[in-house]
Amino acid sequence: MKALVYRKKGEIEWAEVANPEIINPTDIIVKVEGFTFSHADYRPYLGEDDSVKANTIMGHEAVGVISAVGNAVTTLKIGDRVAVGCIIHCNNCSDCASQNYANCQNGGFILGTSENGTHAEYVRVPYGENSVIKIPTNLALEDVVMLSDVLPTAYENVIKKVDFTKVKTAAIIGDGPIGLSTFLFLINNKVKVDIYGHHQVKLDFFKANGAYETFTTIDETNQKKYDLVVECVGNDRGTFEAAQQLLGFNGMLITIGVFKNPVKFFLNELWYQNITIHTGILNVYTLPELLAKIESQEIAPHKIVSQVYGKDDVLTAYHAFKNKDLFKIVVKL
Amino acid sequence: MKALVYRKKGEIEWAEVANPEIINPTDIIVKVEGFTFSHADYRPYLGEDDSVKANTIMGHEAVGVISAVGNAVTTLKIGDRVAVGCIIHCNNCSDCASQNYANCQNGGFILGTSENGTHAEYVRVPYGENSVIKIPTNLALEDVVMLSDVLPTAYENVIKKVDFTKVKTAAIIGDGPIGLSTFLFLINNKVKVDIYGHHQVKLDFFKANGAYETFTTIDETNQKKYDLVVECVGNDRGTFEAAQQLLGFNGMLITIGVFKNPVKFFLNELWYQNITIHTGILNVYTLPELLAKIESQEIAPHKIVSQVYGKDDVLTAYHAFKNKDLFKIVVKL
Repeated sequence: MKALVYRKKGEIEWAEVANPEIINPTDIIVKVEGFTFSHADYRPYLGEDDSVKANTIMGHEAVGVISAVGNAVTTLKIGDRVAVGCIIHCNNCSDCASQNYANCQNGGFILGTSENGTHAEYVRVPYGENSVIKIPTNLALEDVVMLSDVLPTAYENVIKKVDFTKVKTAAIIGDGPIGLSTFLFLINNKVKVDIYGHHQVKLDFFKANGAYETFTTIDETNQKKYDLVVECVGNDRGTFEAAQQLLGFNGMLITIGVFKNPVKFFLNELWYQNITIHTGILNVYTLPELLAKIESQEIAPHKIVSQVYGKDDVLTAYHAFKNKDLFKIVVKL
Repeated sequence: MKALVYRKKGEIEWAEVANPEIINPTDIIVKVEGFTFSHADYRPYLGEDDSVKANTIMGHEAVGVISAVGNAVTTLKIGDRVAVGCIIHCNNCSDCASQNYANCQNGGFILGTSENGTHAEYVRVPYGENSVIKIPTNLALEDVVMLSDVLPTAYENVIKKVDFTKVKTAAIIGDGPIGLSTFLFLINNKVKVDIYGHHQVKLDFFKANGAYETFTTIDETNQKKYDLVVECVGNDRGTFEAAQQLLGFNGMLITIGVFKNPVKFFLNELWYQNITIHTGILNVYTLPELLAKIESQEIAPHKIVSQVYGKDDVLTAYHAFKNKDLFKIVVKL
């Protein structure tokens, strides 16, 4: 089969590799119908981190049809269409018992990092019954492939933590796919949302889809304060510090970013403001809820998809990441 | 009348001063039966802050009997016994509308700082109807005087923010009166509580009253993690940073301390741990609930009182603060 293999910093290949096989009785094999990229797939190529092992197939997001199941699999069968969640979980360790699936002692964020991932014609999904969701055949790939990561990331980290009787205004820092996913949910919950970003094309898209105001800087001239501030950038770019400036009395700051260094927390200003901060990684425990929202057309995740490529253009699709005007890129095999 | 007047750093006086009078129609005058001290009363004397205006009567905690009421006061009358809340609030500004009483544009934490306070034979309480609670005459001063500050501080900042179905273990950093108040509530809610402090006599008191373990240091040899960590020290002593080390997955960190400088937030370690941080100041909105808990003997706040002095020993009582083995000091006039 063909697969997108990470060789080393600056080197990837759409290579011919062996098909995956069932290794453990709880495995399933999924014939991939389509996949999408996340920034986590691109950082190792840029040399920004070394999360992907050399010669590993990349990717943690995909939709496809089951082509093989292990002996212990009883609730899924060959032919089922599924979305693969980006967190593999055994449901059998102490972390899974606390629903900390991302920290699963036998899984976690392993697809496309330590285990071969979804950017391939076939992918082996460990603990398949826990780690995928069955999806109806009539739903568009561009909607359901967002279930793998970007929808539950926004939904679990933000929407499940917010009391919408108290949150009427929000700022989203970051104009990428996570910011957009968060935005679509907040707009659905009648929140007045401002976007802080750096890419005018994307900011215009937010505006056209209901954002109240958009800004390209956060500085002392900006006096707006919000009930909710969602930081979707991370990577030690000063956005956590900036987010604190936007926080109103009784406000909530949620950071979805990944950080490699400690940040500055302005307790000298915030100690008396009754604020709340949440950090979080998704545990992909909300797929049934999210699928129902797609089926009822309450949410339209295909809005997060900027371009769709075919199987002959996988490398082009991968490098489309360099184009900062795009949200998610999907490949249809 | 006699009153404890703050002159300047290092100089206080139990002085003869003029009695307070009704100034605004919403004022009340309370003849003080007893008061207590907080660290906020001592910091200016030590030169640690300049929150108290020179020649101001100190104090924001007291119980007494109403001796005069303004024309607009209808729900309180001369002779009513009341506890004075440490936050004065007009109930008429936009901050009061959001129940941010501590930030009231016409009040806030003014008693004993910008307005004459409670360490006196009489005190004028602005917006008296909003800022005191009527209390039965049979309740002990040592119980009800804790309503002014230390009980609502712990109750509103901690107990009202915690879901006790999820919190089974807690660490309290700080062995002072706020730590003890928090402890008494947590113990009542069946939480297993460890105390981190520096004063062995006080740590022994915690232990004797149901603390699980006590520690005098937090370092890398300490591997305990908690569902809840309450930081009750503040003052830039590194306790917020230390508190983060004690936080378990999905944990909650509540800081009740006062900070003058930014602190270090270890997002590099905590970004994926689904943690929550709360900051807060009390708004003294829970006095009816707390009074009911005293009446039903669900809580016994007199445990927080280490010593009671008479009116001839006010200065001795004030300087008892230097004795770090004591919790709260009460003066009975």
